[in-house]
Amino acid sequence: MEKENGANPSSETERWQFGHNKAVVAAGSRSLREAIYKVIACVEETGLRPVIPIANGDPSVFPSFRTTPIAEEAIVEAVRSAEYNNYSPTNGLLSARQAVADYLSKDLPYKLSPDDVFLTAGCSQAIDIVISALSRPGANVLLPRPGFPMYEARCIYNNVEMRHFDLIPEQGWELDLEQVKKLADENTVAIVVCNPNNPCGSVLKYHHMEEIAKTARKLGVMIISDEVYDHLTFGSNPFIPMGIFGDIVPVVTLGSISKRWVVPGWRLGWIATTDPKGILRKTKVVDSIRSILDITTDPATFIQGALPQIIEKTKDDFFNNITHILRDAAELCYNKIKDIKCITCPHKPEGSMFVMVKLNLSCLVDINDDVDFCSKLAKEESVIVCPGSALEMKNWLRITFAVEQTSLVVGLERLKLFCERHEKN
Amino acid sequence: MEKENGANPSSETERWQFGHNKAVVAAGSRSLREAIYKVIACVEETGLRPVIPIANGDPSVFPSFRTTPIAEEAIVEAVRSAEYNNYSPTNGLLSARQAVADYLSKDLPYKLSPDDVFLTAGCSQAIDIVISALSRPGANVLLPRPGFPMYEARCIYNNVEMRHFDLIPEQGWELDLEQVKKLADENTVAIVVCNPNNPCGSVLKYHHMEEIAKTARKLGVMIISDEVYDHLTFGSNPFIPMGIFGDIVPVVTLGSISKRWVVPGWRLGWIATTDPKGILRKTKVVDSIRSILDITTDPATFIQGALPQIIEKTKDDFFNNITHILRDAAELCYNKIKDIKCITCPHKPEGSMFVMVKLNLSCLVDINDDVDFCSKLAKEESVIVCPGSALEMKNWLRITFAVEQTSLVVGLERLKLFCERHEKN
Ligand SMILES: Cc1ncc(COP(=O)(O)O)c(C=O)c1O
Ligand SMILES: Cc1ncc(COP(=O)(O)O)c(C=O)c1O
Repeated sequence: MEKENGANPSSETERWQFGHNKAVVAAGSRSLREAIYKVIACVEETGLRPVIPIANGDPSVFPSFRTTPIAEEAIVEAVRSAEYNNYSPTNGLLSARQAVADYLSKDLPYKLSPDDVFLTAGCSQAIDIVISALSRPGANVLLPRPGFPMYEARCIYNNVEMRHFDLIPEQGWELDLEQVKKLADENTVAIVVCNPNNPCGSVLKYHHMEEIAKTARKLGVMIISDEVYDHLTFGSNPFIPMGIFGDIVPVVTLGSISKRWVVPGWRLGWIATTDPKGILRKTKVVDSIRSILDITTDPATFIQGALPQIIEKTKDDFFNNITHILRDAAELCYNKIKDIKCITCPHKPEGSMFVMVKLNLSCLVDINDDVDFCSKLAKEESVIVCPGSALEMKNWLRITFAVEQTSLVVGLERLKLFCERHEKN
Repeated sequence: MEKENGANPSSETERWQFGHNKAVVAAGSRSLREAIYKVIACVEETGLRPVIPIANGDPSVFPSFRTTPIAEEAIVEAVRSAEYNNYSPTNGLLSARQAVADYLSKDLPYKLSPDDVFLTAGCSQAIDIVISALSRPGANVLLPRPGFPMYEARCIYNNVEMRHFDLIPEQGWELDLEQVKKLADENTVAIVVCNPNNPCGSVLKYHHMEEIAKTARKLGVMIISDEVYDHLTFGSNPFIPMGIFGDIVPVVTLGSISKRWVVPGWRLGWIATTDPKGILRKTKVVDSIRSILDITTDPATFIQGALPQIIEKTKDDFFNNITHILRDAAELCYNKIKDIKCITCPHKPEGSMFVMVKLNLSCLVDINDDVDFCSKLAKEESVIVCPGSALEMKNWLRITFAVEQTSLVVGLERLKLFCERHEKN
């Protein structure tokens, strides 16, 4: 703001009684955004070479990942109809909830009704709402390590205790269920599972998922299943929704059109109670979700209005093409990383848009840790990579391969040069 | 959900450790949505006569209130460009923040920069974020009575103490500043002012606003100025933004395109720090706002992308027409209410979309209170009116005149019949 008067405000500040909320600042500092903005701030080159962003899961800016015209035209039609300029109902438009119910039911052994679906402004808001709905005093939630830090941020914000269990790299990033059992106690209310996995690029097998469900049931906790990367699989394991085990344990499934349709800016997601026994209703978790939705902003109504068209009319060709591109990119990424000393990739990615890579600090000079690595990489090579510590995995990196192939090749080459330059000899 | 197996879940529920969050349910029960859904649920007629909704401030469903084609086409262009499918930056797109800064600066004695603006998913999310940003333990906030209940809901949700001061009907709904001074203490961080006012339909005068600013300064509290109805004035008082007193006291201005452009479903709003001395920065309120935005869903990126066009290209004709319709509707509403016994309107509406009307219970039989009045009115006449108790004003009603004229006339006629039928003789 351009100041228009010369008063010295410093003498004034003592008189003011307002200030910041420390808990909120603490929550924000755990966000991926803050972590990645810090890395980006290290870039020093100005226009000499393009900055290569392989930190974020947002390929929508690249031509190969442009969404289907069917989705764009569904929006155009909805906004021109002027039928969706009004406020949305609390849970979302019925037609849109029906479309999501039908979409999810295709992969389930039972049929969801629109009443099982709550529309949200992206999967981020779904996380916000579910964590908040569960956060009674003293409650704790089991979170995967590594994981998507919005869960940590929202637990801090809502004053929910978090307990981290490990994903095991040598076992295709499966959950350490023995550890899960040890961590849980009578105040544990939920376990978070992310499949296909961000940041590991792994896809869970049926048998392991059944084990997870049985473990959760034994512990008396519900499963929050983050399936925002649903169907984005390109290895040998197909996508299986956790909801198929909904008769073993109540599952809340979170999703959005952000990833599969490559439109993260459209902010349309959902919470679905995949819970054929209706336990989430009986235990009033559903009331809690609805109450928060009553006082929370909604996804834009005309985007909801377009959703049935988007879901029903998108051609398999579009999905197949995206999967094809991701498969090639994952392959390329995995092979290029194999060629780089001082970093190793324990598991070839087979889903989502990411891969986790381990730093071997002992073979690097001048690099203190993952954050230092990413800062220097940004500074020296204008390549943006996400430090693992932002995902609870110190001295690891998360790399996305969901970028234009040319960018990926250049980014990984610069990463290689960087490692060579900093290698101990 | 259609159950696919016959297991009796009742025996299972005891084993589950999760449940609802009471605080959240308490917050939700204070929402306008809950209050109005309850009234709607009382409607019994099915299709005989149209239901007349004069409870909500959402005229977008009526043909006379259709938004300008310029706004619709700005959306169409943005979505077809495919330039805005990506995630938004934390604070919002620069071009959109610039457009809001310019828009607000037109009415201010200083110029806002884009850094003073934070885009939100409607003014509702702006309220959510500002209350949360200020909510340190022990803090209290001064809220108007009557008021917009999202503030109450968000205070409950964030565990912020609320203290209500009165708006004085006999003084054109001005704030009772003597009461404000008595309510405030060393833990008071902010006072909420809504102008043009929902639910009173009043518009504050310059002199009174200056008094408010000086009072807030004396108390050491900031002003949260809800200007979601900016420029929707049609009486003798023009719209004056509170930010013009920003050199007396820091003001956070909340707004959106929901009301003036009649597109509440588009979910595009803002928080602007109208604070030429930069006190909100120094006291880190701005850091708090930014931290919450880091972990919160954003307004859809392509709607942000369309915002500069929407703001800059909308013709005065469109705004004038809406104001004209509202002026006529307010006049008609006020006159019709004068003709109805047992309800009185202390102040002719001159802004926003609402008027507050007092119930004279002593002249009614069979009516216990405002909620009872609204429930029976819905049941017997299929007219939906908002009970005042949802806005902290027991035995008052809030009526919106921002509906198609034919609906307004029919709604008020049925209201009159209802009152006559329930009148003591
Ligand atoms: C695991 C996971 N969950 C949720 C989200 C948020 O999804 P959305 O963009 O729909 O808000 C992301 C985004 O990257 C994610 O990776
Ligand atoms: C006083 C007031 N503030 C804020 C809002 C919320 O505005 P938006 O629709 O932009 O979220 C409303 C909506 O009715 C309102 O009346």
